[in-house]
Amino acid sequence: MSSTVAEICRNAKTASREVAKLPASARNAALLAMAEALLAEAEPLIAANADDVTAAKGAGTSSTIVDRLTLTEGRLASMAEGLRSVAAQEDPVGEIERGWRRPNGLLIEKVRVPLGVVAVIYEARPNVTADVSGLCLKSGNACILRGSSIATHSNTAIVDVIRRAVQTEGVVADAIQLVGDTSREAALELMQAKDYVDLLVPRGGKSLIETIERHATVPAIIDGDGNCHVYVDAAADPEMATNIILNAKTQRPSVCNAAETLLVHSKLAGTWLPSALEALSAKGVEIRGDDEVRRIWPDAIAASKDDWSAEYLDLVLAVRVVSDLDEAIEHINIFGTSNAEAIVTEDLSAARRFTWEVDSGSVFVNASTRFSDGGEFGYGAEIGISTQKLHARGPMGLRELTSSKYVVWGQGHIRT
Amino acid sequence: MSSTVAEICRNAKTASREVAKLPASARNAALLAMAEALLAEAEPLIAANADDVTAAKGAGTSSTIVDRLTLTEGRLASMAEGLRSVAAQEDPVGEIERGWRRPNGLLIEKVRVPLGVVAVIYEARPNVTADVSGLCLKSGNACILRGSSIATHSNTAIVDVIRRAVQTEGVVADAIQLVGDTSREAALELMQAKDYVDLLVPRGGKSLIETIERHATVPAIIDGDGNCHVYVDAAADPEMATNIILNAKTQRPSVCNAAETLLVHSKLAGTWLPSALEALSAKGVEIRGDDEVRRIWPDAIAASKDDWSAEYLDLVLAVRVVSDLDEAIEHINIFGTSNAEAIVTEDLSAARRFTWEVDSGSVFVNASTRFSDGGEFGYGAEIGISTQKLHARGPMGLRELTSSKYVVWGQGHIRT
Repeated sequence: MSSTVAEICRNAKTASREVAKLPASARNAALLAMAEALLAEAEPLIAANADDVTAAKGAGTSSTIVDRLTLTEGRLASMAEGLRSVAAQEDPVGEIERGWRRPNGLLIEKVRVPLGVVAVIYEARPNVTADVSGLCLKSGNACILRGSSIATHSNTAIVDVIRRAVQTEGVVADAIQLVGDTSREAALELMQAKDYVDLLVPRGGKSLIETIERHATVPAIIDGDGNCHVYVDAAADPEMATNIILNAKTQRPSVCNAAETLLVHSKLAGTWLPSALEALSAKGVEIRGDDEVRRIWPDAIAASKDDWSAEYLDLVLAVRVVSDLDEAIEHINIFGTSNAEAIVTEDLSAARRFTWEVDSGSVFVNASTRFSDGGEFGYGAEIGISTQKLHARGPMGLRELTSSKYVVWGQGHIRT
Repeated sequence: MSSTVAEICRNAKTASREVAKLPASARNAALLAMAEALLAEAEPLIAANADDVTAAKGAGTSSTIVDRLTLTEGRLASMAEGLRSVAAQEDPVGEIERGWRRPNGLLIEKVRVPLGVVAVIYEARPNVTADVSGLCLKSGNACILRGSSIATHSNTAIVDVIRRAVQTEGVVADAIQLVGDTSREAALELMQAKDYVDLLVPRGGKSLIETIERHATVPAIIDGDGNCHVYVDAAADPEMATNIILNAKTQRPSVCNAAETLLVHSKLAGTWLPSALEALSAKGVEIRGDDEVRRIWPDAIAASKDDWSAEYLDLVLAVRVVSDLDEAIEHINIFGTSNAEAIVTEDLSAARRFTWEVDSGSVFVNASTRFSDGGEFGYGAEIGISTQKLHARGPMGLRELTSSKYVVWGQGHIRT
C-alpha cells in the first residue's frame, strides 16, 4: 500500500533534517551505492520497465515517448555514470559564500545550506528518477518524486533499488520518496504542501507549467520556453556564423536551447545570408523571413509577428535582417524567453554590448545556444534550465538546490 | 491626472532597460542628487506631510502611526544620509560571482545583473519611499512604489522631488514611480502584473502578506513573522546570557527580530534562570513558562502550545527549560519562523552544532537576535528580512535586488 501525499510530505520533512546533518562523505558514498545498485539490479529493473513499455505500446503511445520510456543496460549505465559524476562535484553545502567583520567586531558568514524538501514533477523518462534523487541527496535535500503514470513500474522499481542502496550508507530511506498516486489530485496536493515542500521543480510541458502557475502555493522554479536567438553581426566570421546557426538550429531541433530566430546585420544581407540560407535549406530547414529576407530568398515564407515569438522545436527558422546591433538587442529583449542567445562577431565592443544589454539567462559569444545546458556547464546531471529571474537563472546546478543562512559570531554583542 | 497601474508598469519596464545600462557612477550621482534634493526641498516636503498628518489625526489614527507618518527636518536628514550610505555601497551590478573554463575552452562567467522592475507595497512611513528608491536605483532597477493612502501627500511630494533630482544626473524619471491610486484594486493589479514586475517586496503586516500569498502572480519575497529564540546553553557566561536576553526581549519589543522565546538548559534552571527572570520582570516582561519554569518562578503564567508559536511583539516572553542542546534545536526547528535565533555559550562544539542544525535565516552565537537587520549587517538602508528560502534569506541587501546571467565566451564552439 503506497503512502498518501500528506504522509510522504511529513516523512520527507523529517528525513530532510537528517540528510542536512550528513557530511559530504556520507552523501557521496550514498550516491556511489545508488550507482552500484542500478547496475547490480539491471535485470529486475529492465523487467519492471518492460511492463510499462508493453502497456504504453498497447495504449498506442507514440514511438518517441516509448523510446524515452525504455530502459536498457546502456541507459542504466548512463544513469549510474550520471550519479558518479554528481558525486564527484564539489559539495555545495557549507560553502561560505561571503564573510566579513563589522566595525563592532561581529563576524558575519553567509553559508550555503540545503533547501530541505525538493519535489520534482516529471514526465516519461525514468532516468530523471535517478538523476533527481542524486542531485537532491548530494545537495543535502530530501526529495519527493512524482513521475508520470506510464512509468509507474519503472519508477517504483528504481526508487526501491536506490532507497535500499542509500540505507547501506546510513542515509534514511525517506530522503527519496516516490508519489505512487499519479492522479492529478495527488499532483495538486503536492503543489500546495507549502508547510513541507521548500522547492518544486516541474520538468514537463506547457500544461504542467500552467497548472503550476495557477495552483501551486509552494515555491517553484519554472523551466520555461526557449525562443533562442542567434545574431550574426556585421563583423562576424562568415564560416563560424554558418557553423553556429546550423548547429543551433539543426543539431537537435526539439530541445529548448535550439535557435528559433536568426537575426542578421544588414551589411551581410547580400553576402553571407544567401549562403547561410542555402546551407540551412539543404538541412531541411524551412525559412520564414521578413521582406528583406524574401527579396534575397524568394522561397522563404513571409514571417508574421507570431513567428518572432514562436518556439518551433522543429526544422523551422524565423529570419530577420536588422539595421544594427541596437535593433538586434531590442528584438531579443522584446521576443526572447530569457533562455539562451548568441552573437557571432569578431568585434569586441559589439560582443561586450550584446552580453551586457541582452536580458537572458545565458548569452553566448561565438558559440552555439545549444551549450545552455547543465552538463555543458559542468554541473553533472541536470535539474533544469530556469527562465525566471529569482533564485536561479539559466542552467541549474547543485548550488541552485541550496539556500543560505547567516551565521553571526559575537562576544556578548547587544544593540544599543 | 495620475497614471494607471498598467501605464506605470509599462513605463517602468522601459525605464528599467535604460537604468540597467547606466554605469555605477551615474547611479551613484543620482542617489547623491536625491539626498541633496530632500534637504533642499525640506520646507515643501514638510508642508505636504502636514496635510497627511492633519488628516490622519482628524481620522483618529493612533499616535504610533501618526508618529511614523510625521516628517521632520531630522527625519529628512536621516533619509538623505541613508541615500548617501547606499550610494557608498559596493556596486552589486556586473560582479562576476564565479567564472570557469570548460575542458572544451568555453569560458563561463556568472554575472550579477539587475532584476528589472521592483515593486514595493508598504505602509505609513514615508522614509521608505526614499530608501526603496535609492536601493532599487543603486542596484540598477526601476521601482514602482505603492504606499498607503494616509501618506499620499507625503509620498507624492517625495517622489516628485527625487524624480526631478535623478533627471539632473541623466536618469530617466520613470525609473521611480508612485502608484497614486491607493485602492485595493490597484494593489491587486500590481500584484498580478507578471509581464512587468520582476520582484514584489511587501513591507507590511499579516493581512498584506496573506493577500499576496493568495493573489500575487508576480514573484514576491515575503518579509514574514519573527518568532525568534534565545537558547542559553549549560556553558553560557551567565552575565552575557542575561544581557543578551534582556536586549533581545526589551530593547525594542515591537520589531520582528525581538526574542519571543527563551530556552534554558536544565543545568541552569536553578541557578541562572531565577536571576534572569527577575531581571526580565524588573523590565516589565510578563513570563509564560512551562511547569519547570513555574516551579522556579511561581508568578509565571502557564505556557500553552500557542505560546511557543506566538510572535508577541510586546513585553511578553515564553520560557522553557530543555534537557539538552538537541531539545533546544528541535524546539526552534518546530516553532521558529526562520528569522533569527541565538545561542549563548562558551562551548565551541555546542555553538558549531547550533549554527549548523538550526534552520533559520540568521543564527547568532553570543549576540542578540536584534542584529538580524540590514543596517547592522552593513547593507545600508534596508529592503526587508526574508523569511523564505528561495532567492534571499535573512536581511536583504543590494545583492538580493539582483539576478544573474551567464556570459559564455567561445571561438566558434558548436555541440557535437
